Order: sequence, then structure tokens, then C-alpha cells
Amino acid sequence: MDKKRVGIVGAGQLGRMLALAGYPLGIACRVLDTSPDAPGAQVAPAVLGRLDDARALAELAAEVDVVTLEIENIAVEPLETLRARIDVFPPPRALAAAQDRLAEKTLFRSLAIPTAEFVAIDSERDLAQAADKLGWPLVLKTRRMGYDGRGQRVVSSAAELAAAWRELGAVPSIAEAWISFERELSLIAVQGANGQRAFYPLAENVHREGILATTIAPYVDAPLQARAERWLGELMSTLDYRGVLAVEFFLTANELLANEMAPRVHNSGHWTIEGAETSQFENHLRAVLGWPLGSTLPRGHAAMLNLLGELPSVESVLAIPGAHFHDYGKSPRPARKVGHCTLVDVDRARLLERFRALQALVPGDG
Amino acid sequence: MDKKRVGIVGAGQLGRMLALAGYPLGIACRVLDTSPDAPGAQVAPAVLGRLDDARALAELAAEVDVVTLEIENIAVEPLETLRARIDVFPPPRALAAAQDRLAEKTLFRSLAIPTAEFVAIDSERDLAQAADKLGWPLVLKTRRMGYDGRGQRVVSSAAELAAAWRELGAVPSIAEAWISFERELSLIAVQGANGQRAFYPLAENVHREGILATTIAPYVDAPLQARAERWLGELMSTLDYRGVLAVEFFLTANELLANEMAPRVHNSGHWTIEGAETSQFENHLRAVLGWPLGSTLPRGHAAMLNLLGELPSVESVLAIPGAHFHDYGKSPRPARKVGHCTLVDVDRARLLERFRALQALVPGDG
Repeated sequence: MDKKRVGIVGAGQLGRMLALAGYPLGIACRVLDTSPDAPGAQVAPAVLGRLDDARALAELAAEVDVVTLEIENIAVEPLETLRARIDVFPPPRALAAAQDRLAEKTLFRSLAIPTAEFVAIDSERDLAQAADKLGWPLVLKTRRMGYDGRGQRVVSSAAELAAAWRELGAVPSIAEAWISFERELSLIAVQGANGQRAFYPLAENVHREGILATTIAPYVDAPLQARAERWLGELMSTLDYRGVLAVEFFLTANELLANEMAPRVHNSGHWTIEGAETSQFENHLRAVLGWPLGSTLPRGHAAMLNLLGELPSVESVLAIPGAHFHDYGKSPRPARKVGHCTLVDVDRARLLERFRALQALVPGDG
Repeated sequence: MDKKRVGIVGAGQLGRMLALAGYPLGIACRVLDTSPDAPGAQVAPAVLGRLDDARALAELAAEVDVVTLEIENIAVEPLETLRARIDVFPPPRALAAAQDRLAEKTLFRSLAIPTAEFVAIDSERDLAQAADKLGWPLVLKTRRMGYDGRGQRVVSSAAELAAAWRELGAVPSIAEAWISFERELSLIAVQGANGQRAFYPLAENVHREGILATTIAPYVDAPLQARAERWLGELMSTLDYRGVLAVEFFLTANELLANEMAPRVHNSGHWTIEGAETSQFENHLRAVLGWPLGSTLPRGHAAMLNLLGELPSVESVLAIPGAHFHDYGKSPRPARKVGHCTLVDVDRARLLERFRALQALVPGDG
């Protein structure tokens, strides 16, 4: 009998799309979340509990063949404990690295993956050294719990830096050199059993106020693609990885700089549902179950638009040729990711024209 | 607020794939079936009851915006009654026509859609007339409850015909001329609100023992495509249709003959999940909700293999490049449709080569 029961720690939209990718394959996902109304809990059986609660995790693990996760900002230790009795993929050490911006950047550097210059900030005394080394402006980021632009400030003077440090809670942080980038790119990779690997094409992302707004893929640049694949390959080897791994990059005039990694399916890979031969969600499930990976080839060009705050009318979106709509089943809230749309087209110019029409439908976008 | 709650009468694999197509769109499907273990009831909330039970249908209707169905062999009258209070698509009169081979062929003929020659058989006395008109061999088919090859016999003599008539229960039947066909084709169409229409490309089907074995699409023949589209367009107009409609054809040396129609999503359209820009399941939901229809363009070439009786190892299937696996969540039973696989490729020759490898994995196939 094939193993095919997957426990997912977390039941946001990523857990929901994982569970939906599982059904056709006969994969039964079970999710762990605090709320029975969570997006993933609407489409799969749920264990209700805190994501770091050992008893809830044990309950999840008892009914599945492998445990995975859709969120990286969760306690590592209960997952490490769980590994004594069940496979947990990706390995908790990958979470530990992704949770802490200092550990993450140190890992990148140890593998000769270029990053922005950075300085660890453990106390107010470190601030002056940061400014000396990095110049102005610089970006102060808390080491932990940063996502969607939270826990970071761009500052241009010693006074602003000191104020930002206090505003962010005077917690362990890093200061990074300000990068004047031309583009933001991301690469999504997947590693399965026996080191089997696949890479999606690079995608180009646009963030607004720290939150991903759009992704267009593929971003075609063979040397960059090769370089990024080599780096993610090294990360996956070092971490003894299983599952989908995403790394976000800055592309400057001169180089590709790794910004951060996510040890899970990633918002910049949502286009793969319709835009690639196998979605990142299906490939993540295949990887954690040790099944053969699916083709990551793109089906033409794809453009993804995040729907933030509230959903536009589904009928207006679907009237655009080639549009696909994804509703996460969430209630509206400012800046909340409540859904996304993807356009796919063999013709890039036509794709971009239709994408502009799509953006015009979305309140506050376009 | 968009209407987006759909009640589905029946919860087999078609209901399951409809419900799964609904989730990304924020469509909440609810299914009606006798068993809580039915494929559709595994992935969507279910009302338990007989499909012709007025109370169960009313319970289903009470919680949805529109009622549709995944099976045509159900009583028409309770659905007609239901229409007084909720939209039921496709219209029950389309079911009535599809349920009865005599009504179906008479409808085809009334629209000048060619069919095999046929004779109504209401009693043993009609058998001789059938042989006179149709010659040998001929096919005796019960008028009602025929699907997957059930309720029909090919006979080559008066004695065989009389025996077959008795074996099939001496029920109202039709006798059809034996058609020496070169190919079996099917066309899947969809009609939405305000007469919006879309047509998938023709697909080529192979049946074994009356059950669909494989579908390969597109079958490219522009004149045939145009002719079949015109006929399905006329059927949809005449029936005031909403939803997906499938018609199976025989292609002889000289002509295209309509064999039967299905007022629902159809097995020969499963390839559209990965092989077309919008699947038949999504388009059926869009149509019954009155939403804009999605593109029916194929993504290259697709080949679909039904999995009958029991599933092969999912890992062996997924090791074939481009293979997609669909497990219906059924227990094994000889000749039961328990799943299907689809291969998609831009290169038709490579598709067929990989399809042979896929067929070799399946017990009793290839």
C-alpha cells in the first residue's frame, strides 16, 4: 500500500491548496490549525490546536504517514520531538534557518550564496557599527517573525535607526545594506526521495508595502537560472531537504543576491497551478511522500495577481480570457491575502495586456 | 453577492471532480447520494438519500443556489417539481431525452443529425420488422438504463434476436443497424447564460466491452468539428440547455453518426482537467451559475486512460513524464471505474509513446 496520508501543520491558503492538490492523487491530507474556519480546514479534516502544541501535533501525526508544514514561523522543538516517531519534511533544521534572518544569511554565506551586506544587532551599541559598515540608507529587520514586510524599517540617519530599533521592540535584529535592485526574482525548487530534484523557472515578483502583489513567470535568463539552481541545490543538499524550497532574490545591475528563503510552498509559485505541468503543491506532496516528482515545465507565460483585503467579483475576473480565480474562503480584512488570480497565455504580450485588464478590476491595484 | 452554492444530484467520480473544481472558485458544492462513502461525499458535504426522493432533493435544494446532476439515469419528475423553486440545470427535459434511446434518436433525427437506422421494439412482433429493415448483424438495446455497454446485445440471426430480447427483459427497446465504424469520436459542448457557448475539440475514444477505455484529444478535422459543433449547438438551443453536453459519434467511411448524448460532464472529457485551459468540470459549474465560460483551447495533446477494477501503483504511474493521476476513492471491483490517468504533451508522437508505457502498467490493458 502506498503511503498517502499527509499531515499539514497550519491550514491557511497554502494548506488549502496542498489539500486540494492531494485529492486527485488519492492523498488524504489532514490539517492542524487553531480555527475550524481556516481555509485549509474548509476542505480537509482538521485537528484543532496550537501549531506548537505537542499533544495536537501528536494527534495529527497519529493519523498520517508523514508530517509537513505550510508555515515556517512555528516552534522547531516540538517538530524535532515528533521526528522520533514520524517523518517530518522539510526537516525542522530548515525551519530553524529560515526563521532567523541572521542564521539564514549566515547559511547563505557559508555556501557562497551572495547576500546584501549585514551586521547583527544585539543591542543599541551595535547600531553605530552598522551605520559605519553599511552606510545610509539601511534596513533594520528583526531576526525573527518577519514576513509580508513586518518587523522591518528603512532608515536614513542615526536618529531614525535608534527610533526604529526601539519601535521594533529592541529585539535581536540585523541591519542590512540598502539594495538598489532592478528586479525581485524567486526560484522554487523541490527535492524528493533519493535526492531527486526539480526546479521551476525563475519568476519575477513585485511587492507593495512588503506584500507580494504580482508574479510573472518564466523570467528567462539561462545563466541566472543556472546560478540560482546551483545555489538552491546546495541549500537542499546541506539541509537534507525534502519538499518545496523557495528563495527570493534581488537582481541588481551586477549580481543576484539572496534575500530570504521559505521552506514551504510559496506565494510566488501559485502561478504553477495552471502555468506549469505540475503545480508546486502537487510536487511538494509527491516529494514528502517520496513519490517521483512531476515536470516543472511552464505552459507558456503566466501572471499571478494577489487579491488583498477583499475579492473582486468572480464574474468580472472570469470574463477575462484565460483568467483563473482562487478564493481562499477567508473573510475580508485590509491587506489580508484573500485569493489570487492567474492568467496563462502562450503569447507574453497578450498576457501582459490582459493582466492590465485584470489589475484594473482589483480595488487599490493597477 | 455572487451565487455560488451548487447542489449536485449524485456523488460518483463526476460529482467528486465537480466539487474539487469548485473549491478554487469559492464554489461550495453539496452532493446528494445514498452513501456517505461515495467519491463525491468524500470531498464535499453530503445530503444522504435516494436521488429520486423528493424530500432529499428538497433538503439539497434548500442549501444551494442551483441544482445540477452528475448522472442522467434518475427520475425526471422530482426534478421537474423542484424547478418550481430553484434552477435545475441541465433542464430535466434534456435528461428525459437522454434516458430513452428512442426519444434521443428521434430528437437527433428531428434536428437532421444523422444516426444509425433504428426501429422501435415494443413487443416480440416488432423483431421481424427490425431484421427486415436493418439486416444482420443488428444491435438490440433497451430504451432505458443503458450505459457502459449494459442493456445491449449484438445479434446475427432471428433466433439470437429473440433470445436477446428475452434476456434483456422483454422491455421497450430499439434495434439499430450495425455500424462498421472507423473511429468513435465525442464532442463536449457547454452552454451558459444568455446562450454563451463553448466547444472542446473532438476527442477520439476507444471502448472495450462497452466501457470507455481511452480518449485521445484533440482529434483534428476542421470540417467534422464544425459539423459536430453545429449539431450540438442545435441540441442546446432546442433543449434550452445550461451546462456541459456530450455527444458520442461513430465515424464511418462516409459520415458522422450520432450514437448517444449525455446531459452532464462526460468521461471522454476528463482529459480537459490538465489538457485544456479550462476543464469541463469548471465550465459546467460556470455555466450552471451563469458565470462567463472559460477557454476550451487544448494545451497540446492529451491522452486519458481509464483505470478499471483496481488502481495501479501511483508511484509507477507518476514516474512517467507528464502523467497525472486521478483516484476516485472507490474500493476495487471488476470493471469498476476507479480512477484515470492523463498524459499531456505538445508532441503527439512522444505522447503516444509514453501512453503505451502507461498502458503497460495497467493490469488487463495495453
